[in-house]
Amino acid sequence: MTNSSAFRLDEAIAVLNRTPAALDALLRGLPDTWTHRNEGGTTWSAFDIVGHLIFADRTDWLPRLHRILENGETRPFDPFDRQGQVKASAGKSLNQLLDEFAVLRRKSVAELRSLHLHPSDLERRGKHPALGPVTVSELLSTWAAHDLNHLHQLSRVMAYQYRTFVGPFAAYLGVMHCEGHSAP
Amino acid sequence: MTNSSAFRLDEAIAVLNRTPAALDALLRGLPDTWTHRNEGGTTWSAFDIVGHLIFADRTDWLPRLHRILENGETRPFDPFDRQGQVKASAGKSLNQLLDEFAVLRRKSVAELRSLHLHPSDLERRGKHPALGPVTVSELLSTWAAHDLNHLHQLSRVMAYQYRTFVGPFAAYLGVMHCEGHSAP
Repeated sequence: MTNSSAFRLDEAIAVLNRTPAALDALLRGLPDTWTHRNEGGTTWSAFDIVGHLIFADRTDWLPRLHRILENGETRPFDPFDRQGQVKASAGKSLNQLLDEFAVLRRKSVAELRSLHLHPSDLERRGKHPALGPVTVSELLSTWAAHDLNHLHQLSRVMAYQYRTFVGPFAAYLGVMHCEGHSAP
Repeated sequence: MTNSSAFRLDEAIAVLNRTPAALDALLRGLPDTWTHRNEGGTTWSAFDIVGHLIFADRTDWLPRLHRILENGETRPFDPFDRQGQVKASAGKSLNQLLDEFAVLRRKSVAELRSLHLHPSDLERRGKHPALGPVTVSELLSTWAAHDLNHLHQLSRVMAYQYRTFVGPFAAYLGVMHCEGHSAP
């Protein structure tokens, strides 16, 4: 089944609602080997990724939605700080971040629902500081896809910790050959 | 923190134990848009991936471990059927598969623990039909990495469903540019 369809807010929310529990089930209580190691240099660990998701819920998605609803394309979004979680997560445990994300996301989704966006609202346009014009539906679908993007990254960062242990099996593990594909 | 260390069975088990609940939290109750669509052609949906994880627990990991412990390199592993889940999952719902995976994985890990593998057992060698000699620790670390490999795939397959909806934001979503990297 690959037929596409129109963007549906309830389908995006179905993912947004599930991400905190999925990360909790995957990460809570795991040894630091899995949660605090990265892919080298300044790349992110699982801990960093959860912090980033929290930071984005706080400073990116809903603030940008409000910006569109209030200012349209006349006032661009504030730029997002991609390292913002470093300070925000400092001194916290992973379990604290998982708790924080669960509470925050519930609040975020409740606020999103409370806006009672009309289908025509989904077509309203704002202005991204780098990407130019974007619609509400592009912003909200990206919110859900961004969760999946970081689940994709997280599974890769974790798998990376076993890259030497798996020996010749690495040939069959696509995740070991993924380099992230992110724009710089 | 990127320092590597030796393979530890308890760390692999920590991941194996968590995968079913993580998939359950992510997938149960999601609209079919997310769970039954694939990346086109004969690629896999989330439903197919959960079926594959079940099929691999049944026919691959523990049977291969036993083969090494009983036959060493003298008798290669049986080849794994990469489409084996198609028949095994037919007629089942995703919720049934999630339930089945949770029960099966609990059983698999209990069986693995009951073998009381000694550190020296981890160095024992078997023979993979295509890859040649592999050790117990390579097999078991691959079991855990294989869960992560398919979580990586699953998040990509789900994100793919939103590839047009996200518009220009695709530039910032590495997952939209991942092509899987699997060996053919």
